[in-house]
Amino acid sequence: MTRQQLVDQIQSKKSYLCVGLDTDPAKIPVHLQQLPDGVLRFNKAIIDATRDYCVSYKINTAFYESQGLRGWEIMAETLAYIPATHFTIADAKRGDIGNTSAQYAKTFFEVLPFDAITVAPYMGADSVKPFLEYTDKWTIVLGLTSNPGSADFQQKILGDSGKPLYETVLETVSSWGNPGNLMFVVGATKASDLGPIRSIIPDHFLLVPGVGAQGGSLKDVSAYGLNTDAGLLVNASRAILFADSGEGFAEAAAAVARTYREEMQLYLTEV
Amino acid sequence: MTRQQLVDQIQSKKSYLCVGLDTDPAKIPVHLQQLPDGVLRFNKAIIDATRDYCVSYKINTAFYESQGLRGWEIMAETLAYIPATHFTIADAKRGDIGNTSAQYAKTFFEVLPFDAITVAPYMGADSVKPFLEYTDKWTIVLGLTSNPGSADFQQKILGDSGKPLYETVLETVSSWGNPGNLMFVVGATKASDLGPIRSIIPDHFLLVPGVGAQGGSLKDVSAYGLNTDAGLLVNASRAILFADSGEGFAEAAAAVARTYREEMQLYLTEV
Repeated sequence: MTRQQLVDQIQSKKSYLCVGLDTDPAKIPVHLQQLPDGVLRFNKAIIDATRDYCVSYKINTAFYESQGLRGWEIMAETLAYIPATHFTIADAKRGDIGNTSAQYAKTFFEVLPFDAITVAPYMGADSVKPFLEYTDKWTIVLGLTSNPGSADFQQKILGDSGKPLYETVLETVSSWGNPGNLMFVVGATKASDLGPIRSIIPDHFLLVPGVGAQGGSLKDVSAYGLNTDAGLLVNASRAILFADSGEGFAEAAAAVARTYREEMQLYLTEV
Repeated sequence: MTRQQLVDQIQSKKSYLCVGLDTDPAKIPVHLQQLPDGVLRFNKAIIDATRDYCVSYKINTAFYESQGLRGWEIMAETLAYIPATHFTIADAKRGDIGNTSAQYAKTFFEVLPFDAITVAPYMGADSVKPFLEYTDKWTIVLGLTSNPGSADFQQKILGDSGKPLYETVLETVSSWGNPGNLMFVVGATKASDLGPIRSIIPDHFLLVPGVGAQGGSLKDVSAYGLNTDAGLLVNASRAILFADSGEGFAEAAAAVARTYREEMQLYLTEV
């Protein structure tokens, strides 16, 4: 999917919501846990219920890998079920030396035809560039994550610049790609950090986790993060997936997603 | 496998060689490429040929994921074929927020019963600790990697300590585990860096890639890195796997592995 196609989707739906399919088999409704392929049925119901309110789905690979071979099949079947209108993200956080990253890129761009993959930056340029060589795909590099551990290394101040490591990651990595094939993960827990981040990368799309279950505010994220192309994909996972633990889980998920969309509609009008 | 069991293996074999099963299907001998399960046959032949000379096998997950479902099956079948005497490493470089890392730990410690997994540190404590909670397993955290991109972030100097980021990673992460369940990846391309590293983490095992195809010297790595328990696993992948591209690939692999072992025997005697 091109940047223009993504922007068009956002404008026509008035939504920049990404639904995170972090489908923990132990958390889906009990009546589905008892069925074969309960996770796949759950995912399909969530997609049917939320597709009108979101523009993207993010599949967290860990929750599928941990189910063994059948988990990988379900990941592929879930991906195939997502409408072609929606931007698909493999939240895989891969990254290795060049010839190995090339294999991961093949996995998540060819074998499983996602639009995008999340990538860890610690190993530097040659670990990220094999993903960027797919110019019709998207590489989403971790900048500032939303978890407490982001303080351990990402927020350490570098001696040469006096700035935190994650800002150097944003600056450096942004020179390896362009706003048409590169995005960044920027956590929502401190939305005020988005101001300086926007001055470093005004044009790039930001994938923002941490709204909802992790405590980030959609209002603040939107105030600091939106640009003229929207430039945001705000992800919610648990808040939508597990809004209700019973038979009405899909309706409850739809209601939460619709609420996010309504709020986003307001913020998009204000830009 | 416990630390003592690993040390015993190293002492009895006089080897700290890890063979990296980075099995690129496009690089195995042509006669195997034409067979069903050529990669599995190749891996089994490599294991048979090298098991007497090494103490560990490292499976690079990228090369299996990129082959789709059959790749995951072959990874599991290869793991099952490795003798129980050998220390098995999933070179997966995973890492995510806590509940997600827990799923990765389940994948590579339970679903696929590896002894160890490699983990990326960028997301900090809560991304690493779910692996360390398996006290009978091993977490191998990236410190200084052997690729050119290690200069981009790992070697940046931090303002508060005046030391490179990777040293802070070693110091900080070492407080989260102990030398009985935590190792570090430390690249071999600048063996002199191992001196300061050993002063930070004198007791931990180091998994050292980059010897052979990537240009690191086994002699230098051993001089700077060995401790009284050996404390090193030196990995070679391509130099062993693809020592010969024809029918004699396994014998050629054995010869290279034996040469490493002979050299290691010398260095172990000198400690």
